[in-house]
Amino acid sequence: MKQLWLFNQINSDLQRVEKELHLFIETDFPVLEESAVHLLDAGGKRLRPAFALLAGKFYGYPFERLLPVAMALELIHMATLVHDDVVDASETRRGRPTVKAKWGNVVSIATGDYLLARSLELLAEIDDPEVSRILAEVSVEMSKGEIQQIKASFDVNQNLKQYYYRINRKTALLIEASCKLGAIVSDAPKRQIWALGRYGHDIGMAFQIVDDLLDVTAEAKQLGKPVGGDLQQGIMTLPMILAIERSPQKERLVYLLGKEDKSDQDIAEAIQMIKSSGAIEESLRYVDLYINKAKTYLLELPNVPTRKALADLAQFIRDRRF
Amino acid sequence: MKQLWLFNQINSDLQRVEKELHLFIETDFPVLEESAVHLLDAGGKRLRPAFALLAGKFYGYPFERLLPVAMALELIHMATLVHDDVVDASETRRGRPTVKAKWGNVVSIATGDYLLARSLELLAEIDDPEVSRILAEVSVEMSKGEIQQIKASFDVNQNLKQYYYRINRKTALLIEASCKLGAIVSDAPKRQIWALGRYGHDIGMAFQIVDDLLDVTAEAKQLGKPVGGDLQQGIMTLPMILAIERSPQKERLVYLLGKEDKSDQDIAEAIQMIKSSGAIEESLRYVDLYINKAKTYLLELPNVPTRKALADLAQFIRDRRF
Repeated sequence: MKQLWLFNQINSDLQRVEKELHLFIETDFPVLEESAVHLLDAGGKRLRPAFALLAGKFYGYPFERLLPVAMALELIHMATLVHDDVVDASETRRGRPTVKAKWGNVVSIATGDYLLARSLELLAEIDDPEVSRILAEVSVEMSKGEIQQIKASFDVNQNLKQYYYRINRKTALLIEASCKLGAIVSDAPKRQIWALGRYGHDIGMAFQIVDDLLDVTAEAKQLGKPVGGDLQQGIMTLPMILAIERSPQKERLVYLLGKEDKSDQDIAEAIQMIKSSGAIEESLRYVDLYINKAKTYLLELPNVPTRKALADLAQFIRDRRF
Repeated sequence: MKQLWLFNQINSDLQRVEKELHLFIETDFPVLEESAVHLLDAGGKRLRPAFALLAGKFYGYPFERLLPVAMALELIHMATLVHDDVVDASETRRGRPTVKAKWGNVVSIATGDYLLARSLELLAEIDDPEVSRILAEVSVEMSKGEIQQIKASFDVNQNLKQYYYRINRKTALLIEASCKLGAIVSDAPKRQIWALGRYGHDIGMAFQIVDDLLDVTAEAKQLGKPVGGDLQQGIMTLPMILAIERSPQKERLVYLLGKEDKSDQDIAEAIQMIKSSGAIEESLRYVDLYINKAKTYLLELPNVPTRKALADLAQFIRDRRF
């Protein structure tokens, strides 16, 4: 697990979440055990558990109630990752081969189903209809996001609305749910549950845009997956959509982005055109809008150190390089 | 939907389940809507909803409580079918192309995820921790069954224990849950919930063995999928396991069953060897054991017409030809 200094307040508890997840996904099933543990060990920032715990910090922090919620959130996230890697035919994630690359599509499907089913078990244990309802709705929308990603791949005529639809379902809704659920199981006031949800939503949108930017601007080693992966897979992201609008060589860029089998040279050329179009800077302005909006929702919350941590986290998400 | 005369008692209510399922899976998402409706329209006997309703018949039949449970059961079943068709690379089911064949693997994954997520919504609405817990546990076990099916494909050294492990997870557990849940939401006495569960389990085991037999003995037209599909996909079933034990040409049969790319002639030869080994008759004796055991559990239940219907259903499952 990648430890973020931003999570200082909750780091030992995040480690507990990690440990419990490890114990929880253990099974007598060799392949399933290996693939699920492989996925868990690949790390990640455990953002969703972290957001749930941080939200709880405002309201007495009932850790034993937050723990299963944090675990369920990460399990759902992991389940979608492993299915997404099949949908996107991704070979590496976080610097390691994906479950799909290592065990193939069918194990990936079964592993995702297993993780989702285990999260169901946690939800039954948590036994709170609102928690179940929120996570069910998010899961439904996430599956629509999956389909949208399939439908929209290599479609160079996408507009911003379609892009937002997709990243909302891919990322923002579950981070929104993480913040809300942490508050809900901690018996937060309604208005503050709402504000934390809005904060999470906007942070989630910003997070995904930055992710999409890093795919164009980062170094592969830092990113843990090949740069230009979205380009290769035909996933149209914000910098691409903006670059098409702005590029003086629009036709060439459209041709490159719509090409199904891109050479390394195609990708390098497309990246160069995106960079020189000013689309990176414009995308970052969209990120800033979300980050700033997210921060205003924090003003609805009690002025405790966690509020500052959430504001710093927003800033970190804007400036992150991995 | 294939109407069974056995469901006379509940036929109009099964049609209501069908109608509600149709309304429920509607979505603004074209591909998802088409694939989910395609799957639903492909029919099937709606055994799981039927068992839930029939179980409820013993105890005042609270239809409005049974309805969402029946729907959730069928959604979970559909979700596993659509993922299984990817795992098994099946091209047809119930006489129609599978979602996998028509839209490919990635749409199948997303469709399964969508259907499962929708069942979660129903569970949140039902808001009964025992219902959620049972379905979560069954889902976990079913995902293990998926993996087992992958691991065991083309493995000619399988024993009966492994076969039972697999068909329990593939079929019996969800039918067991259907019977139990129908009783649970109808506030049945504990002992009778148990008896209905055992009945469902044994019926489910028998059902799957018959399914596996039909793959060897049926006509393609009646079956709605190619005969010998299991042979082609390397799924080792009871008649195959027994035939290997009994066949005078054991080595040849082992060779044929383990062969990954079987010609039509290979399949015809293998089927002939299985039939002449006596494995079909022996498999039917196993079916009879389960059917008879299932019937004895019925003696624990009130002597109302539904009890006779469940006994007839057991007999039908033994004798079915499709």
